[in-house]
Amino acid sequence: MKEKRLAIYPGSFDPVTNGHLDILSRALELFDVVVIAIAENVSKTGLFTPKERAQLLRESIADDAERNTEVEVFSGLLVDYARRRGARAIVRGLRAVADFEYEFQLALMNRQMEPTLDTVFLMTDQQHFYISSSLVKEVARFGGDISPFVPPPVVRALADKA
Amino acid sequence: MKEKRLAIYPGSFDPVTNGHLDILSRALELFDVVVIAIAENVSKTGLFTPKERAQLLRESIADDAERNTEVEVFSGLLVDYARRRGARAIVRGLRAVADFEYEFQLALMNRQMEPTLDTVFLMTDQQHFYISSSLVKEVARFGGDISPFVPPPVVRALADKA
Amino acid sequence: MKEKRLAIYPGSFDPVTNGHLDILSRALELFDVVVIAIAENVSKTGLFTPKERAQLLRESIADDAERNTEVEVFSGLLVDYARRRGARAIVRGLRAVADFEYEFQLALMNRQMEPTLDTVFLMTDQQHFYISSSLVKEVARFGGDISPFVPPPVVRALADKA
Amino acid sequence: MKEKRLAIYPGSFDPVTNGHLDILSRALELFDVVVIAIAENVSKTGLFTPKERAQLLRESIADDAERNTEVEVFSGLLVDYARRRGARAIVRGLRAVADFEYEFQLALMNRQMEPTLDTVFLMTDQQHFYISSSLVKEVARFGGDISPFVPPPVVRALADKA
Amino acid sequence: MKEKRLAIYPGSFDPVTNGHLDILSRALELFDVVVIAIAENVSKTGLFTPKERAQLLRESIADDAERNTEVEVFSGLLVDYARRRGARAIVRGLRAVADFEYEFQLALMNRQMEPTLDTVFLMTDQQHFYISSSLVKEVARFGGDISPFVPPPVVRALADKA
Amino acid sequence: MKEKRLAIYPGSFDPVTNGHLDILSRALELFDVVVIAIAENVSKTGLFTPKERAQLLRESIADDAERNTEVEVFSGLLVDYARRRGARAIVRGLRAVADFEYEFQLALMNRQMEPTLDTVFLMTDQQHFYISSSLVKEVARFGGDISPFVPPPVVRALADKA
Repeated sequence: MKEKRLAIYPGSFDPVTNGHLDILSRALELFDVVVIAIAENVSKTGLFTPKERAQLLRESIADDAERNTEVEVFSGLLVDYARRRGARAIVRGLRAVADFEYEFQLALMNRQMEPTLDTVFLMTDQQHFYISSSLVKEVARFGGDISPFVPPPVVRALADKA
Repeated sequence: MKEKRLAIYPGSFDPVTNGHLDILSRALELFDVVVIAIAENVSKTGLFTPKERAQLLRESIADDAERNTEVEVFSGLLVDYARRRGARAIVRGLRAVADFEYEFQLALMNRQMEPTLDTVFLMTDQQHFYISSSLVKEVARFGGDISPFVPPPVVRALADKA
Repeated sequence: MKEKRLAIYPGSFDPVTNGHLDILSRALELFDVVVIAIAENVSKTGLFTPKERAQLLRESIADDAERNTEVEVFSGLLVDYARRRGARAIVRGLRAVADFEYEFQLALMNRQMEPTLDTVFLMTDQQHFYISSSLVKEVARFGGDISPFVPPPVVRALADKA
Repeated sequence: MKEKRLAIYPGSFDPVTNGHLDILSRALELFDVVVIAIAENVSKTGLFTPKERAQLLRESIADDAERNTEVEVFSGLLVDYARRRGARAIVRGLRAVADFEYEFQLALMNRQMEPTLDTVFLMTDQQHFYISSSLVKEVARFGGDISPFVPPPVVRALADKA
Repeated sequence: MKEKRLAIYPGSFDPVTNGHLDILSRALELFDVVVIAIAENVSKTGLFTPKERAQLLRESIADDAERNTEVEVFSGLLVDYARRRGARAIVRGLRAVADFEYEFQLALMNRQMEPTLDTVFLMTDQQHFYISSSLVKEVARFGGDISPFVPPPVVRALADKA
Repeated sequence: MKEKRLAIYPGSFDPVTNGHLDILSRALELFDVVVIAIAENVSKTGLFTPKERAQLLRESIADDAERNTEVEVFSGLLVDYARRRGARAIVRGLRAVADFEYEFQLALMNRQMEPTLDTVFLMTDQQHFYISSSLVKEVARFGGDISPFVPPPVVRALADKA
């Protein structure tokens, strides 16, 4: 029997956006299992706790994606976590040149630490190019309508934070 | 009678530089009225208060530009403010590729929230390419000569802060 | 009486795409008259002659835009042409960083030759980000469906060329 | 039984470089079969014919990669070819920002024409960042040593061309 | 007798990486003396004090480089410091486009303040492209192996901090 | 006695612009001798022959720069030529991000072929950022005034070509 192809999709997901969900659905076309790995970042404090972010992700993932998706909070080095999970690849979404540079630097460092683990870049749908978690939070703080940018559970959660 | 073409030139202007004034004078060639809109940013604290920034802007604007320029502090979403003012366009200055990426993301998000409001990009004169408010503040903090970069009222105000 | 604000929108338009038409409609929000100026490029030979390109443009422009739009073929320096037409600005569409660099270089040179003539950058709708005349021609050559990228008269004209 | 995951790795490969082979070996970690698809470009004439390029590729592919790799020359639209082959993804190598912009534009256009076919970007090893087929040909033309950049069959073939 | 050609290599060096040492050795090929100038940044607090950073630099510099290298902590404007030291040039390392933009802005501002002092850009070896002090600190915090990225004294010092 | 520090400043110089001369004068601050090396490009045909370009360069170099500058036409690989001349460095001018990417790729390939030969990047004065030989030729072809962009001997030579 063939082993399952597992990929890690890491990020802070504070909160998840429609752009993240778009990348997830594309990754599921390529891998048997995609693990969404929320980095428990010690230095940065988010709007939502890692636990809340995981909960919002689970509520936002479409039913047909659910079967092959896991959501986990991890701490420590991404490459160590990926090794423990037996991941074949790291998945990252690209939107623009600015993303690209930083992502490249990270991917090269990860490759140095774990040469067998490759980073796979997928392109978000162009309608999501301008969506970022931080822009969404800024719009929400000023009472703007964020429903075109994030899934319904996040719309409600951001309204509760206001 | 034809309605006046009004554009919003938003920013933090902390403090205004010669590059900002250069963009203003170019925008006045295209629009009947330009409203300089100082964002009252809740999270970031500036060197000058929004009120001080507005005052420095008013003192720095050339006499011939004054008649068609307004300076205002606004809070909330830029697109809401622009709608209230009946703006036809948002004006932004471009200097370099780094600007460009961020500006594009912002402009796309604003367009999503207010499709009839377009963003117009103007290019600063190349002698201002390297001037940014933050670099000016850094030079001033170390006692460097900032008179080539900012208008006289700002030179005085930064000297008072030292 | 106030003079009309006229802008030049220069390019090769070989052939016009939906991205070009999107920029045109945005420019018409800002200016009273927009002159689409087709550069009669001596060195590069296009798929369509400048005359054909002008004809395709005229057929593709929406009725409500027609009243304030002119289409002309010009030769010589753009800044000379703009001066003759009494233009207040040059309009250029931006899609990506690659555009941006080249456009900046051109705009700076034009500004050097004609300081009173500014270049105004507008951003195409993101659904047009990937459309370029050359990609469209390549797709058409291989029999691909180009109807989502260009207006109907161009679809027909490209079919005739095949 | 599960269907095989097939990916297309398109390009001109005129000639294949070590950078291409590096991307191939990374793609084989993610897909069951990788089809190297040489575009029979009508407008550009290469140093090697498509047939010669295919032959050089076959000679250069490592034994362990051979079993899951096919080399084909195709004409027409890439998305049509990918559909005929039942491909799940297109594979492209990224080296630098310049690559990135062009690749994005292409990938968006392909996605428009074939929404179920995604493009997967992989990053070449940094030792191959500066290698391109055209630079290799330029070095070879002046008698430079190209053995660090291309596989041995290409070294011999370029020596024969000199 | 000819005056010595002295260059300043400024930075925060918190801590020094193999990429910095690579730039240093390249700069020593071009200049008689290279002064590594650690900026005593008032606003940012580093992991190491400027004094510790200087100590780590001195321990990390190869014996043959030591004779022509000085390490100093400076405060105030870089151009003032460079003038006091009689520097002929400022040396900066480039790795990627993101670096490039910021470096250009800084270099233009420095040139404005001190026209006779030029900035010389050197390119790090590509094996160091992804190494930055901040990425190294992040890896070290999570217990990752940083020995491929920094010299041995820094490996020890970061272990002590953990 | 100390050996002279010699640098190569390679390019096509078809024709020399004020931007090239600006880089030359900066390079002469760093090196004892700068050799301007005109690549005898077999594939591209220029407006001026390599001999004419060399002549225009010699006429355009300021008297005080002349003593430490040589102008030569070379063919073959740049690194071979640099080795024969005993060069310590290659000098290249940078203007924009687009330059940067291509220059990096070239510099990495040259370093691979000749590890002891480094490339030194200098930044042109910002007033020359938009000047390129090809833009100058385009302006000249249409009868535009090119005197702000090129030295007087080139103004005359381009007038003769018209």
